[in-house]
Amino acid sequence: MFDRFLRACRREKTDVTPVWFMRQAGRYMAEYRALREKHTLLEICKTPELALEVTLQPLRLGVDAAILFADILLPLEPMGAPFSFEKGEGPVIHAPVRDRADIDRMRVFEPEEGLGYVLDAIRLIRRELDGKTPLIGFAGAPFTMASYLVEGGKSSDYFRTKQLMWGDPASFSLLMSKISEVVRRYLHAQVEAGAQAVQLFDSWIGALSPEDYRTHVAPHVKNILQSIETTGVPVIHFGTNTSTLLEAQRDCGGTVIGVDWRLPLGEAWKRIGYDHAIQGNLDPLLLCAPPDVAAARARAVLAEAAGRPGHIFNLGHGIVPQTPVDHVKALVDVIHAYRHEGAA
Amino acid sequence: MFDRFLRACRREKTDVTPVWFMRQAGRYMAEYRALREKHTLLEICKTPELALEVTLQPLRLGVDAAILFADILLPLEPMGAPFSFEKGEGPVIHAPVRDRADIDRMRVFEPEEGLGYVLDAIRLIRRELDGKTPLIGFAGAPFTMASYLVEGGKSSDYFRTKQLMWGDPASFSLLMSKISEVVRRYLHAQVEAGAQAVQLFDSWIGALSPEDYRTHVAPHVKNILQSIETTGVPVIHFGTNTSTLLEAQRDCGGTVIGVDWRLPLGEAWKRIGYDHAIQGNLDPLLLCAPPDVAAARARAVLAEAAGRPGHIFNLGHGIVPQTPVDHVKALVDVIHAYRHEGAA
Repeated sequence: MFDRFLRACRREKTDVTPVWFMRQAGRYMAEYRALREKHTLLEICKTPELALEVTLQPLRLGVDAAILFADILLPLEPMGAPFSFEKGEGPVIHAPVRDRADIDRMRVFEPEEGLGYVLDAIRLIRRELDGKTPLIGFAGAPFTMASYLVEGGKSSDYFRTKQLMWGDPASFSLLMSKISEVVRRYLHAQVEAGAQAVQLFDSWIGALSPEDYRTHVAPHVKNILQSIETTGVPVIHFGTNTSTLLEAQRDCGGTVIGVDWRLPLGEAWKRIGYDHAIQGNLDPLLLCAPPDVAAARARAVLAEAAGRPGHIFNLGHGIVPQTPVDHVKALVDVIHAYRHEGAA
Repeated sequence: MFDRFLRACRREKTDVTPVWFMRQAGRYMAEYRALREKHTLLEICKTPELALEVTLQPLRLGVDAAILFADILLPLEPMGAPFSFEKGEGPVIHAPVRDRADIDRMRVFEPEEGLGYVLDAIRLIRRELDGKTPLIGFAGAPFTMASYLVEGGKSSDYFRTKQLMWGDPASFSLLMSKISEVVRRYLHAQVEAGAQAVQLFDSWIGALSPEDYRTHVAPHVKNILQSIETTGVPVIHFGTNTSTLLEAQRDCGGTVIGVDWRLPLGEAWKRIGYDHAIQGNLDPLLLCAPPDVAAARARAVLAEAAGRPGHIFNLGHGIVPQTPVDHVKALVDVIHAYRHEGAA
């Protein structure tokens, strides 16, 4: 059903709970791995026809939304910080950004110039999907992006990022402002190109204390979200490990708040408030568990939503590469077969 | 003051808030690094005179408790799973434990036989410290220990551990039971050898949903803690990323609950209940920030405790190797200089 996902974002009644998955296109699918034998990840992102192909791959599983195939780090290159993906290591920023001079050099660019290929991909995907499946665009949020820039890649403790934040808050704020303006323009451009909803990924904010989040991060996120909300498209504001930040995160904006498995969905929704939609929150590793175990836990998530309009089923984070495709398909069927008892 | 720490564990009034740090003996100290040039980590752990030397090293910083120098993984070797520390990689379990046959082979042993060297170290340290500084013993909790055994080392997502837990819950439970019995006996033996308090490190439980924690972990932790509490020594029950598990964690036992920086200490204490003492909760990376920033944040933690007896100041996790020693000393002085306004 075409508008199940978008209706749920607006907290309107749907026939069944809509479902899509973070990283629903990816290495767990044979057709994706086959394409990756011929092209690098960045080649796929930069070639609209290939990004289209990968974006469509998971739709055969019955999900209720497509998400643009891209990488949250793409804006870093036109900002002046090229990176590559090293085997088994994840992204490596060639020249990490660590002091004021580095930050001063970072450029705020026009999306049609710096990331035209993403916008072309969105236009192509929209033509292909129109009237069938809604398309979600996305970007990384400033703290998450800054952490890659400063650390030079993935980090387990965000040591250098936190030292910059505490030790030189003015420079950190400048970096966050530049990224925020890039992300704000990029999401606006995605909406203009045809994205029917957008998700802001602040995947790593759970490493911060509530005070650090409020002081050093929230104002930047708020700038982005309140600007994007003027477009009228639903905005999903996602993070992991956010159980102590939920209210502060919600106050920054977002039509839908995305939560992970660490908090029961009903409790999260109550704290966020029923004037927001909610997305989540199965542990992604349950997709590798016996399907009856995953099904029972998915039904428990659905029961937490208690038939209230505005729940979008998703995982608490992305699908992992080890996931059997048939488990994903089976889970979609479980979600779509579920009926809320006594639901109006 | 000798009994500041122990009094706070019992929620008795103290002159100032006691403070100690997880990993207060370690690579951030020059005298530790000097010793490590001559001995491996395991050699230090296994030689009571060296464990004594390292345990005493941080006392010059003015902390109110000593913690036995040892490693949470030491019990794995006598259980039948030897390991070593590989440079830059952390612990590597030589033969990870992944199926029922592996689990069946794991041995529950007598601490005086399998870990006599730790108990000898405790006796030696107690003779040295008696009447000066109280000594904390410790052990790893079953989920945290199981995760190393099953993954073969440190993990970012606990993939194999969760698959065992969901896919073969009976075998997982057997593994948890064996570890629990080992830990229970080990902590009893530490108390008999002279430990004046013990801490149970369940560092990685924050990766679990509340349901998984309650079903697969809590009963085992409860068995350990309720047995150790009969000795009458204070028991610190510590985890990180536990903001959604706090009540369940408290219900397993512990005189003192250790929390990390993700939740304001006042809020955590209110949820845990004032019939428990609390330990925490500064972000350990603040010890690398400018000392005035760390001091302000430490005072904010102290203010959260609001002068209520039963707060033990600590970090939310261990001191990192990059930490300047003089920052640690300065923080101890900040804690000891703090006076609660209007405190009775």
